[in-house]
Amino acid sequence: MNSSDIALPELPASRTDRRWVEVALADLDAVLADHLHCERKAAQSALSMVRAYPDRPDLVASVARLAHEETSHVVQVTQVLARRGARPRFDLGDDYVQALRRSVRKREPDRLIDHLLVFALIEGRSAERLGLLGEALPDPELAALYRALAAAEVRHRDTFLALALAAGPAAEVAGRATELAAREAEIIARLPIRPRIH
Amino acid sequence: MNSSDIALPELPASRTDRRWVEVALADLDAVLADHLHCERKAAQSALSMVRAYPDRPDLVASVARLAHEETSHVVQVTQVLARRGARPRFDLGDDYVQALRRSVRKREPDRLIDHLLVFALIEGRSAERLGLLGEALPDPELAALYRALAAAEVRHRDTFLALALAAGPAAEVAGRATELAAREAEIIARLPIRPRIH
Repeated sequence: MNSSDIALPELPASRTDRRWVEVALADLDAVLADHLHCERKAAQSALSMVRAYPDRPDLVASVARLAHEETSHVVQVTQVLARRGARPRFDLGDDYVQALRRSVRKREPDRLIDHLLVFALIEGRSAERLGLLGEALPDPELAALYRALAAAEVRHRDTFLALALAAGPAAEVAGRATELAAREAEIIARLPIRPRIH
Repeated sequence: MNSSDIALPELPASRTDRRWVEVALADLDAVLADHLHCERKAAQSALSMVRAYPDRPDLVASVARLAHEETSHVVQVTQVLARRGARPRFDLGDDYVQALRRSVRKREPDRLIDHLLVFALIEGRSAERLGLLGEALPDPELAALYRALAAAEVRHRDTFLALALAAGPAAEVAGRATELAAREAEIIARLPIRPRIH
Protein backbone atom coordinates (compact mmCIF):
# COMPACT_ATOMS: atom_id res chain seq x y z
CA MET A 1 0.00 0.00 0.00
CA ASN A 2 1.29 3.45 -0.89
CA SER A 3 1.45 5.86 2.04
CA SER A 4 -0.67 8.31 0.03
CA ASP A 5 -3.51 5.76 0.34
CA ILE A 6 -3.43 5.98 4.13
CA ALA A 7 -6.22 8.08 5.64
CA LEU A 8 -4.46 10.24 8.22
CA PRO A 9 -6.61 12.06 10.78
CA GLU A 10 -6.51 15.80 11.32
CA LEU A 11 -4.33 16.49 14.36
CA PRO A 12 -5.80 17.79 16.57
CA ALA A 13 -9.28 16.40 15.91
CA SER A 14 -11.16 19.27 17.56
CA ARG A 15 -11.04 23.04 17.79
CA THR A 16 -10.16 24.94 20.92
CA ASP A 17 -13.08 26.64 22.67
CA ARG A 18 -12.90 30.27 21.52
CA ARG A 19 -13.23 31.51 25.12
CA TRP A 20 -9.69 30.17 25.67
CA VAL A 21 -8.25 33.12 23.72
CA GLU A 22 -10.02 35.64 25.97
CA VAL A 23 -8.80 33.86 29.10
CA ALA A 24 -5.26 33.65 27.70
CA LEU A 25 -5.11 37.34 26.69
CA ALA A 26 -6.45 38.37 30.11
CA ASP A 27 -3.41 36.83 31.81
CA LEU A 28 -0.75 36.70 29.12
CA ASP A 29 2.16 36.56 31.55
CA ALA A 30 0.76 33.33 33.00
CA VAL A 31 0.41 31.89 29.48
CA LEU A 32 3.99 32.89 28.62
CA ALA A 33 5.32 31.38 31.87
CA ASP A 34 3.48 28.15 31.06
CA HIS A 35 4.61 28.25 27.43
CA LEU A 36 8.25 28.42 28.59
CA HIS A 37 7.83 25.09 30.37
CA CYS A 38 5.95 23.55 27.41
CA GLU A 39 8.90 24.31 25.13
CA ARG A 40 11.35 23.07 27.77
CA LYS A 41 9.45 19.81 28.19
CA ALA A 42 9.18 19.37 24.42
CA ALA A 43 12.98 19.68 24.18
CA GLN A 44 13.44 17.26 27.09
CA SER A 45 11.03 14.73 25.56
CA ALA A 46 12.90 14.88 22.25
CA LEU A 47 16.23 14.36 24.05
CA SER A 48 14.75 11.44 25.99
CA MET A 49 14.09 9.76 22.61
CA VAL A 50 17.84 10.05 21.84
CA ARG A 51 18.49 8.20 25.09
CA ALA A 52 15.83 5.54 24.55
CA TYR A 53 16.23 4.79 20.81
CA PRO A 54 19.91 5.09 19.80
CA ASP A 55 19.36 1.98 17.67
CA ARG A 56 17.19 4.10 15.33
CA PRO A 57 19.67 6.59 13.79
CA ASP A 58 17.09 8.35 11.57
CA LEU A 59 14.85 8.96 14.57
CA VAL A 60 17.83 10.21 16.61
CA ALA A 61 18.81 12.65 13.85
CA SER A 62 15.23 13.98 13.58
CA VAL A 63 14.56 14.40 17.28
CA ALA A 64 18.00 15.97 17.87
CA ARG A 65 17.14 18.69 15.32
CA LEU A 66 13.74 19.05 16.95
CA ALA A 67 15.29 19.49 20.40
CA HIS A 68 17.58 22.16 18.97
CA GLU A 69 14.61 24.06 17.60
CA GLU A 70 12.60 23.67 20.82
CA THR A 71 15.49 25.08 22.86
CA SER A 72 15.53 28.13 20.57
CA HIS A 73 11.86 28.59 21.51
CA VAL A 74 12.78 28.34 25.20
CA VAL A 75 15.28 31.17 24.61
CA GLN A 76 12.72 33.23 22.68
CA VAL A 77 9.98 32.89 25.31
CA THR A 78 12.51 33.82 28.01
CA GLN A 79 13.30 36.98 26.04
CA VAL A 80 9.60 37.84 25.63
CA LEU A 81 9.08 37.51 29.38
CA ALA A 82 12.11 39.75 30.06
CA ARG A 83 10.94 42.41 27.58
CA ARG A 84 7.55 42.51 29.33
CA GLY A 85 9.20 42.83 32.73
CA ALA A 86 7.65 39.48 33.63
CA ARG A 87 9.42 36.50 35.14
CA PRO A 88 9.44 32.76 34.58
CA ARG A 89 7.32 30.83 37.09
CA PHE A 90 7.40 27.36 38.53
CA ASP A 91 5.89 24.69 36.31
CA LEU A 92 2.37 23.93 37.49
CA GLY A 93 2.50 20.46 35.98
CA ASP A 94 0.54 19.42 32.95
CA ASP A 95 -2.50 17.22 33.55
CA TYR A 96 -3.20 17.37 29.79
CA VAL A 97 0.10 15.69 28.88
CA GLN A 98 -0.13 13.28 31.82
CA ALA A 99 -3.59 12.16 30.70
CA LEU A 100 -2.39 11.68 27.12
CA ARG A 101 0.64 9.70 28.23
CA ARG A 102 -1.60 7.25 30.09
CA SER A 103 -2.76 6.07 26.65
CA VAL A 104 0.75 4.94 25.66
CA ARG A 105 0.94 1.16 25.25
CA LYS A 106 3.71 -0.65 27.11
CA ARG A 107 5.18 -3.07 24.57
CA GLU A 108 7.60 -2.04 21.81
CA PRO A 109 7.19 -0.95 19.06
CA ASP A 110 3.69 0.11 20.20
CA ARG A 111 5.26 2.19 22.94
CA LEU A 112 7.43 4.12 20.48
CA ILE A 113 4.55 4.58 18.02
CA ASP A 114 2.22 5.86 20.75
CA HIS A 115 4.85 8.20 22.17
CA LEU A 116 5.47 9.66 18.70
CA LEU A 117 1.72 10.06 18.10
CA VAL A 118 1.22 11.66 21.52
CA PHE A 119 4.05 14.10 20.73
CA ALA A 120 2.44 14.79 17.33
CA LEU A 121 -0.86 15.54 19.08
CA ILE A 122 0.75 17.84 21.65
CA GLU A 123 2.55 19.70 18.87
CA GLY A 124 -0.65 19.88 16.84
CA ARG A 125 -2.67 21.28 19.74
CA SER A 126 0.12 23.70 20.64
CA ALA A 127 0.30 24.83 17.02
CA GLU A 128 -3.46 25.50 17.02
CA ARG A 129 -3.32 27.54 20.23
CA LEU A 130 -0.13 29.45 19.42
CA GLY A 131 -1.79 30.25 16.08
CA LEU A 132 -4.88 31.59 17.91
CA LEU A 133 -2.58 33.82 19.97
CA GLY A 134 -0.80 34.86 16.76
CA GLU A 135 -4.15 36.08 15.38
CA ALA A 136 -5.41 37.71 18.56
CA LEU A 137 -2.39 39.32 20.24
CA PRO A 138 -2.61 43.13 20.03
CA ASP A 139 1.21 43.59 19.97
CA PRO A 140 2.15 43.04 16.29
CA GLU A 141 5.72 41.90 17.08
CA LEU A 142 4.55 39.33 19.61
CA ALA A 143 1.74 38.23 17.28
CA ALA A 144 4.29 37.63 14.50
CA LEU A 145 6.48 35.60 16.85
CA TYR A 146 3.52 33.43 17.85
CA ARG A 147 2.56 32.84 14.23
CA ALA A 148 6.16 31.74 13.56
CA LEU A 149 6.15 29.47 16.61
CA ALA A 150 2.82 27.98 15.50
CA ALA A 151 4.30 27.23 12.07
CA ALA A 152 7.27 25.50 13.74
CA GLU A 153 4.93 23.34 15.84
CA VAL A 154 3.06 22.30 12.68
CA ARG A 155 6.39 21.11 11.23
CA HIS A 156 7.18 19.25 14.46
CA ARG A 157 3.75 17.60 14.42
CA ASP A 158 4.39 16.39 10.88
CA THR A 159 7.89 15.16 11.81
CA PHE A 160 6.51 13.09 14.69
CA LEU A 161 3.71 11.75 12.50
CA ALA A 162 6.20 10.73 9.79
CA LEU A 163 8.42 9.05 12.41
CA ALA A 164 5.39 7.17 13.77
CA LEU A 165 4.36 6.02 10.29
CA ALA A 166 7.92 4.76 9.73
CA ALA A 167 7.89 2.82 13.01
CA GLY A 168 5.08 0.40 12.15
CA PRO A 169 2.65 -0.66 9.42
CA ALA A 170 1.36 2.68 8.14
CA ALA A 171 -2.33 1.74 8.05
CA GLU A 172 -2.22 0.50 11.64
CA VAL A 173 -0.34 3.60 12.77
CA ALA A 174 -2.88 5.83 11.02
CA GLY A 175 -5.70 3.95 12.79
CA ARG A 176 -3.98 4.41 16.12
CA ALA A 177 -3.49 8.13 15.34
CA THR A 178 -7.26 8.43 14.82
CA GLU A 179 -7.93 6.73 18.18
CA LEU A 180 -5.45 8.90 20.05
CA ALA A 181 -6.70 12.07 18.35
CA ALA A 182 -10.21 11.26 19.62
CA ARG A 183 -8.81 10.67 23.10
CA GLU A 184 -6.89 13.97 22.95
CA ALA A 185 -10.08 15.82 21.95
CA GLU A 186 -11.90 14.31 24.97
CA ILE A 187 -9.09 15.30 27.32
CA ILE A 188 -8.89 18.89 26.06
CA ALA A 189 -12.70 19.25 26.22
CA ARG A 190 -12.90 18.30 29.89
CA LEU A 191 -10.01 20.52 31.04
CA PRO A 192 -10.89 23.89 32.58
CA ILE A 193 -10.34 26.93 30.35
CA ARG A 194 -7.29 28.56 31.88
CA PRO A 195 -4.36 30.82 31.02
CA ARG A 196 -2.05 28.02 29.93
CA ILE A 197 -1.15 26.55 26.59
CA HIS A 198 -3.15 23.40 27.48
CA MET B 1 35.70 42.71 47.63
CA ASN B 2 36.11 43.02 43.89
CA SER B 3 35.60 39.78 41.99
CA SER B 4 39.05 40.27 40.42
CA ASP B 5 40.49 39.76 43.92
CA ILE B 6 39.00 36.26 44.13
CA ALA B 7 41.46 33.44 43.52
CA LEU B 8 39.65 31.11 41.15
CA PRO B 9 41.04 27.60 40.65
CA GLU B 10 41.97 26.21 37.26
CA LEU B 11 39.14 23.95 36.10
CA PRO B 12 39.96 21.13 35.78
CA ALA B 13 42.73 20.93 38.36
CA SER B 14 44.61 18.06 36.70
CA ARG B 15 45.66 16.94 33.25
CA THR B 16 44.28 13.87 31.54
CA ASP B 17 46.60 10.88 31.35
CA ARG B 18 48.10 11.05 27.84
CA ARG B 19 47.35 7.36 27.28
CA TRP B 20 43.68 8.36 27.14
CA VAL B 21 44.18 9.84 23.66
CA GLU B 22 45.61 6.55 22.33
CA VAL B 23 42.73 4.57 23.83
CA ALA B 24 40.21 7.06 22.42
CA LEU B 25 41.67 7.08 18.90
CA ALA B 26 41.80 3.26 18.90
CA ASP B 27 37.99 3.12 19.26
CA LEU B 28 36.78 6.45 18.01
CA ASP B 29 33.26 5.24 17.24
CA ALA B 30 32.82 4.30 20.90
CA VAL B 31 34.06 7.76 21.94
CA LEU B 32 31.68 9.45 19.50
CA ALA B 33 28.75 7.33 20.71
CA ASP B 34 29.58 8.30 24.30
CA HIS B 35 30.09 11.93 23.34
CA LEU B 36 26.58 12.04 21.84
CA HIS B 37 25.12 11.15 25.24
CA CYS B 38 27.41 13.62 27.05
CA GLU B 39 26.05 16.45 24.92
CA ARG B 40 22.49 15.17 25.36
CA LYS B 41 22.87 15.03 29.13
CA ALA B 42 24.49 18.47 29.22
CA ALA B 43 21.44 19.85 27.38
CA GLN B 44 19.08 18.00 29.72
CA SER B 45 20.92 19.25 32.80
CA ALA B 46 20.70 22.84 31.54
CA LEU B 47 16.97 22.41 30.90
CA SER B 48 16.50 20.93 34.36
CA MET B 49 17.86 24.22 35.75
CA VAL B 50 15.06 26.07 33.90
CA ARG B 51 12.58 23.82 35.70
CA ALA B 52 14.22 24.13 39.13
CA TYR B 53 15.14 27.84 39.24
CA PRO B 54 12.50 29.88 37.35
CA ASP B 55 12.79 32.45 40.17
CA ARG B 56 16.28 33.34 38.82
CA PRO B 57 15.59 34.88 35.39
CA ASP B 58 19.26 35.60 34.59
CA LEU B 59 20.18 31.99 35.27
CA VAL B 60 17.22 30.78 33.17
CA ALA B 61 18.30 32.98 30.25
CA SER B 62 21.90 31.70 30.44
CA VAL B 63 21.12 28.01 30.74
CA ALA B 64 18.46 28.20 28.02
CA ARG B 65 21.11 29.53 25.60
CA LEU B 66 23.49 26.83 26.82
CA ALA B 67 20.91 24.10 26.18
CA HIS B 68 20.41 25.48 22.68
CA GLU B 69 24.13 25.24 21.99
CA GLU B 70 24.42 21.75 23.53
CA THR B 71 21.59 20.49 21.31
CA SER B 72 23.47 21.79 18.26
CA HIS B 73 26.38 19.62 19.43
CA VAL B 74 24.03 16.63 19.71
CA VAL B 75 23.06 17.25 16.07
CA GLN B 76 26.71 17.63 15.01
CA VAL B 77 27.88 14.42 16.71
CA THR B 78 24.92 12.58 15.17
CA GLN B 79 26.08 13.81 11.75
CA VAL B 80 29.70 12.74 12.40
CA LEU B 81 28.51 9.23 13.34
CA ALA B 82 26.39 9.05 10.18
CA ARG B 83 29.28 10.22 7.95
CA ARG B 84 31.49 7.50 9.43
CA GLY B 85 28.81 4.87 8.84
CA ALA B 86 28.69 4.42 12.63
CA ARG B 87 25.58 4.39 14.79
CA PRO B 88 24.56 5.87 18.11
CA ARG B 89 24.74 3.38 20.99
CA PHE B 90 22.95 2.98 24.28
CA ASP B 91 24.24 5.21 27.06
CA LEU B 92 26.55 3.18 29.31
CA GLY B 93 25.91 5.50 32.26
CA ASP B 94 28.48 7.88 33.63
CA ASP B 95 30.13 6.91 36.92
CA TYR B 96 32.26 10.06 36.63
CA VAL B 97 29.26 12.40 36.71
CA GLN B 98 27.49 10.28 39.33
CA ALA B 99 30.54 10.46 41.63
CA LEU B 100 30.77 14.23 41.15
CA ARG B 101 27.08 14.72 41.87
CA ARG B 102 27.45 12.94 45.19
CA SER B 103 29.44 16.00 46.36
CA VAL B 104 26.46 18.33 45.84
CA ARG B 105 25.22 19.74 49.15
CA LYS B 106 21.50 19.44 49.89
CA ARG B 107 20.48 22.84 51.24
CA GLU B 108 19.85 25.89 49.02
CA PRO B 109 21.67 27.96 47.87
CA ASP B 110 24.55 25.50 48.42
CA ARG B 111 22.79 22.99 46.22
CA LEU B 112 22.56 25.43 43.32
CA ILE B 113 26.16 26.61 43.78
CA ASP B 114 27.47 23.04 43.86
CA HIS B 115 25.43 22.00 40.84
CA LEU B 116 26.77 24.97 38.88
CA LEU B 117 30.35 24.18 39.96
CA VAL B 118 29.93 20.50 39.08
CA PHE B 119 28.62 21.52 35.64
CA ALA B 120 31.61 23.89 35.28
CA LEU B 121 33.96 21.02 36.12
CA ILE B 122 32.31 18.62 33.68
CA GLU B 123 32.50 21.27 30.95
CA GLY B 124 36.12 22.01 31.85
CA ARG B 125 37.14 18.34 31.72
CA SER B 126 35.18 17.82 28.50
CA ALA B 127 36.86 20.88 26.99
CA GLU B 128 40.28 19.48 27.88
CA ARG B 129 39.53 16.09 26.35
CA LEU B 130 37.76 17.37 23.25
CA GLY B 131 40.80 19.64 22.81
CA LEU B 132 43.13 16.62 23.04
CA LEU B 133 41.06 14.93 20.32
CA GLY B 134 41.18 18.16 18.30
CA GLU B 135 44.99 18.00 18.39
CA ALA B 136 45.32 14.27 17.75
CA LEU B 137 42.59 13.32 15.28
CA PRO B 138 44.11 12.46 11.89
CA ASP B 139 41.03 13.63 9.93
CA PRO B 140 41.49 17.43 9.61
CA GLU B 141 37.78 18.18 9.31
CA LEU B 142 36.92 16.16 12.41
CA ALA B 143 39.90 17.65 14.28
CA ALA B 144 38.64 21.17 13.47
CA LEU B 145 35.16 20.26 14.70
CA TYR B 146 36.58 18.96 17.98
CA ARG B 147 38.66 22.10 18.49
CA ALA B 148 35.49 24.17 17.96
CA LEU B 149 33.53 21.97 20.38
CA ALA B 150 36.34 22.29 22.94
CA ALA B 151 36.20 26.09 22.64
CA ALA B 152 32.42 25.97 23.20
CA GLU B 153 32.88 23.86 26.33
CA VAL B 154 35.40 26.40 27.68
CA ARG B 155 32.74 29.11 27.25
CA HIS B 156 30.17 26.92 29.00
CA ARG B 157 32.58 26.24 31.86
CA ASP B 158 33.04 29.99 32.31
CA THR B 159 29.28 30.61 32.12
CA PHE B 160 28.62 28.08 34.88
CA LEU B 161 31.45 29.50 36.97
CA ALA B 162 30.07 33.04 36.59
CA LEU B 163 26.58 31.82 37.53
CA ALA B 164 28.00 30.08 40.62
CA LEU B 165 29.90 33.21 41.67
CA ALA B 166 26.67 35.21 41.33
CA ALA B 167 24.74 32.71 43.47
CA GLY B 168 26.69 33.20 46.69
CA PRO B 169 29.52 35.16 48.34
CA ALA B 170 32.24 35.04 45.65
CA ALA B 171 35.14 34.15 47.99
CA GLU B 172 33.15 31.24 49.47
CA VAL B 173 32.14 30.02 46.04
CA ALA B 174 35.74 30.20 44.84
CA GLY B 175 36.83 28.16 47.87
CA ARG B 176 34.16 25.59 47.14
CA ALA B 177 35.29 25.49 43.50
CA THR B 178 38.81 24.65 44.67
CA GLU B 179 37.47 21.81 46.87
CA LEU B 180 35.31 20.37 44.11
CA ALA B 181 38.11 20.68 41.54
CA ALA B 182 40.34 18.59 43.82
CA ARG B 183 37.55 16.05 44.20
CA GLU B 184 37.07 15.94 40.42
CA ALA B 185 40.80 15.32 39.90
CA GLU B 186 40.63 12.37 42.34
CA ILE B 187 37.61 10.91 40.57
CA ILE B 188 39.13 11.19 37.10
CA ALA B 189 42.44 9.70 38.32
CA ARG B 190 40.83 6.54 39.67
CA LEU B 191 38.62 5.87 36.64
CA PRO B 192 39.85 3.33 34.10
CA ILE B 193 41.27 4.74 30.88
CA ARG B 194 38.60 3.92 28.34
CA PRO B 195 37.19 5.07 25.02
CA ARG B 196 34.71 7.53 26.52
CA ILE B 197 34.81 11.26 27.10
CA HIS B 198 35.13 10.63 30.86
